Amino acid sequence: MTTNTDPSSAPRTGTAIFPTEEQLAEVHYGPDGLVTAIVQEATTREVLMVAYMDAEALRRTLDSGRTWFWSRSRKEYWLKGETSGDRQWVRAMYYDCDGDAILVEVDQDGRGACHTGERTCFYRAFGSS
Amino acid sequence: MTTNTDPSSAPRTGTAIFPTEEQLAEVHYGPDGLVTAIVQEATTREVLMVAYMDAEALRRTLDSGRTWFWSRSRKEYWLKGETSGDRQWVRAMYYDCDGDAILVEVDQDGRGACHTGERTCFYRAFGSS
Repeated sequence: MTTNTDPSSAPRTGTAIFPTEEQLAEVHYGPDGLVTAIVQEATTREVLMVAYMDAEALRRTLDSGRTWFWSRSRKEYWLKGETSGDRQWVRAMYYDCDGDAILVEVDQDGRGACHTGERTCFYRAFGSS
Repeated sequence: MTTNTDPSSAPRTGTAIFPTEEQLAEVHYGPDGLVTAIVQEATTREVLMVAYMDAEALRRTLDSGRTWFWSRSRKEYWLKGETSGDRQWVRAMYYDCDGDAILVEVDQDGRGACHTGERTCFYRAFGSS
């Protein structure tokens, strides 16, 4: 009989965040109805990706504890990792001073956040090194 | 005679980054000519702020080693910290997989990045704590 003692193999779960009405009213959407969302890994502090949320995607993210975005190219809601398995579990969410950007701290499942297979979408630096 | 031995008091200087033409061509500006720029503190890994660059602001940032943005509200270029003294010194710059966001790693001078006096613009969390 094999007993799995690796705590990292325990399935993660989503934890809802309950914002106040005042907090939600501080979020200012652009003319396209979207707000910029930056996703940062909670443990490594690595910036993983940037995507966009409308009010409904923000609500779904807060409710489910997983990251929902609005895909500007596909024009549809997008639950991160639902196809790839590279899910993001929300640990905290912040809004910035003028309310037009959101910072989402997550635990990242799988190989990472980027569709290229890289851990972060910001895997290319300017300059020669 | 007093000798100042605190290395943190040494004035910081900007270091230019020399991107390749191929790297610059990977940056995709929106219909408004802007790309989203996320500023992260190099040492603490804290996400400090989000602002916007056009091609000229990006060029100035790479050339000077300080952060230049395009102010959407004032419709002018903006050298971060020039009025407040809270300057940002660029340590590395990255562009994301689809080229529509830039990550700028900086050393932050002064009290921080936010005009409110907070260190980061993301000083407010959703939810009651």
